[in-house]
Amino acid sequence: MDLGRLSFNQMTCDPANLTQAIDACVRGGLHWIGVWRHKIKDASAEQYGEQIRDAGLRVSGLCRGGMFPALTPEERQRRIDDNLRAIDEAAGLGTDTLVMVCGGLPEGSRDLAGARSMVVDGLAKIMPHAKARSVRIGIEPLHPMYAADRSVVSTLGLANDMVERVASDQLGVVIDVYHVWWDPHVYREIERSRGHIFGFHVCDWLVPTPHMLMGRGMMGDGVIDIARLRKAVEAQGYAGPIECEIFNQAIWDAPIDQTIARMKQTFLDYC
Amino acid sequence: MDLGRLSFNQMTCDPANLTQAIDACVRGGLHWIGVWRHKIKDASAEQYGEQIRDAGLRVSGLCRGGMFPALTPEERQRRIDDNLRAIDEAAGLGTDTLVMVCGGLPEGSRDLAGARSMVVDGLAKIMPHAKARSVRIGIEPLHPMYAADRSVVSTLGLANDMVERVASDQLGVVIDVYHVWWDPHVYREIERSRGHIFGFHVCDWLVPTPHMLMGRGMMGDGVIDIARLRKAVEAQGYAGPIECEIFNQAIWDAPIDQTIARMKQTFLDYC
Repeated sequence: MDLGRLSFNQMTCDPANLTQAIDACVRGGLHWIGVWRHKIKDASAEQYGEQIRDAGLRVSGLCRGGMFPALTPEERQRRIDDNLRAIDEAAGLGTDTLVMVCGGLPEGSRDLAGARSMVVDGLAKIMPHAKARSVRIGIEPLHPMYAADRSVVSTLGLANDMVERVASDQLGVVIDVYHVWWDPHVYREIERSRGHIFGFHVCDWLVPTPHMLMGRGMMGDGVIDIARLRKAVEAQGYAGPIECEIFNQAIWDAPIDQTIARMKQTFLDYC
Repeated sequence: MDLGRLSFNQMTCDPANLTQAIDACVRGGLHWIGVWRHKIKDASAEQYGEQIRDAGLRVSGLCRGGMFPALTPEERQRRIDDNLRAIDEAAGLGTDTLVMVCGGLPEGSRDLAGARSMVVDGLAKIMPHAKARSVRIGIEPLHPMYAADRSVVSTLGLANDMVERVASDQLGVVIDVYHVWWDPHVYREIERSRGHIFGFHVCDWLVPTPHMLMGRGMMGDGVIDIARLRKAVEAQGYAGPIECEIFNQAIWDAPIDQTIARMKQTFLDYC
């Protein structure tokens, strides 16, 4: 594996602010960083973009847009407006990829199919602006355990269906091994993603999983065959950055330089 | 809804032993009970079977066989032998259905496809004995969040594939709404299950889910469209018992008569 492709998603160390994360990536000799929107504060996206470029780094992607389903047309429009701002932030930051966590069921609703339609509708509405700003929109399917509250896009197959329906060159998928590893159709769907894979994320599935949100593991500490998934993605032409994104309190509590060192080693050993 | 079809799965109240659960079902005016193997102690399956029949109840199913994948052929054989005993216990108890939780990855393995093959192999090996004892084997697909440690059969589609491959009249599926509600293909796969649906389980998906194992909710407290799933199952000819199975500490801590009363009311309201 080429460490030059490894990207540090900053939510792997939540306690660090964006400047601290940038500095740590530089100390760690990395070339890429993954940025979250809520970390863009104290300065504009453009200013952070300049700081990141000056540090010799590139932004692999901005997390996250999405969250389209809502009960009222007004609230759905507010979500769309927020996605337009997210596209501007991605452009300002200088990344070509905005990652989508598409949203769960509207409050009180049991209508999954309806929520999935709202996602397609929302994506279609933001694509002209994405195109205008040269930002690609990457749908990240989320594990089915997040279907109710984070994303009704529970499989890569469903994400591919949406890419087909919206039919824009700027719309594709971001594949995180944590969300798709269990899927009996994952390799078939990776083939179907050919030409529209905009990102690849790694971490591991711990057994037992200590927490539904904060229970992700460092590569190699769990049961995901990460290397096989990475090779499958590359067989479809993906040669971009590989982002390490881990939500885990123990990792958050560790010194960031130590986390980056572990990430580099486990990336070489298990990805 | 017909309360005469409602079955109380005894793990909805773990503190009660089997005799206490039987007595509570009788007090609650129920006609069915779902039994777990580890609760068959102090007496034989045959003795409990007689006790249940004498109480005017029927057993909707015995939980659980399965757990086929293992690292060595010897250990896989031990699991198969245990399934043969489970079939005998089901027959002794007087139920025609043994529910399968098929098992997760063998320890240290990352080979999902291999584990799935072991499940098919194990099922094929136990079918002759199931046939001899007139016990039907129902594969219960489990939510993908249990793929690593409980069942590599993560979708109803995969369970249907296995039913096709093993090709025995005695092999079918048990559909629990908790495990399948999120699946974009669930209604298509319910159609495909026609003729081999051996059970239907209800509970609800809470938002947020308080715990990966013990976080299930009473019907109506969550986001699952249970009635729609029930109608879909019935449209394919299923007219058997509907089992309520809830793992939730607060419900376990409640008096069993109160739990059964709530179950009856929410069954009428939400199923």
